Amino acid sequence: MTAKPVNLTEALQSFTEVYSPRIVARMNDYDVRVAHTRGEHVWHTHADTDEFFLVLDGRFDIAIREADGHEHTVVLHPGDTYVVPRGTEHKPSSPGGSILMFEPTGTLTTGDAVAGEIPAHVDSTAGHDLV
Amino acid sequence: MTAKPVNLTEALQSFTEVYSPRIVARMNDYDVRVAHTRGEHVWHTHADTDEFFLVLDGRFDIAIREADGHEHTVVLHPGDTYVVPRGTEHKPSSPGGSILMFEPTGTLTTGDAVAGEIPAHVDSTAGHDLV
Repeated sequence: MTAKPVNLTEALQSFTEVYSPRIVARMNDYDVRVAHTRGEHVWHTHADTDEFFLVLDGRFDIAIREADGHEHTVVLHPGDTYVVPRGTEHKPSSPGGSILMFEPTGTLTTGDAVAGEIPAHVDSTAGHDLV
Repeated sequence: MTAKPVNLTEALQSFTEVYSPRIVARMNDYDVRVAHTRGEHVWHTHADTDEFFLVLDGRFDIAIREADGHEHTVVLHPGDTYVVPRGTEHKPSSPGGSILMFEPTGTLTTGDAVAGEIPAHVDSTAGHDLV
């Protein structure tokens, strides 16, 4: 439960790490998280949940690998929303920016099936509390 | 599932009605909705769900009536997020603006317990699809 309002700009200013989401609100058994984005994330899949993205600033791309192996990239700008369906292999990347995500509490940033090693600049986490 | 990105600004420009949410994305059994806000909403309660608000533009106030009858108002500006806990009687109002909401699919704008008549400018709906 949120006792008082949380401003997204202030939340983003409270940390600098990229791909290391902070939980700005909890509702039911879901988290609202914000993250700075820069560089390549990692190919991963969430078997059991869709994942909602809203771009707050900059640009955020999501490479999608279809079941047939075909890849395409969704390019997102501020104000753009996109849902990656459960079970869909995807890899975010960004020249720099910030995003808001909505996902079930406990969902890992790297999903439950990662292709390859997790790069050092990607935090494998279910989100951190704001401090 | 969202097949392609939906931009929140374009979504809001596609309709003018206040307090009549449009569904911009679906993820799992939740909706992401946007709405224009202006004037007084109505006191209501969602018994079974929290409700997440993000102010996109303008100002959005949420009057909260505690279980002991005490009332206070949360004043929200762009970028502010707030969660109204389930079972909490609340009444939004706004001098004008727009908001984003997360809530379970099927959640009514007027909840499941309304105090008094629903004003004509408030649409009692589980959200409309974008057209």
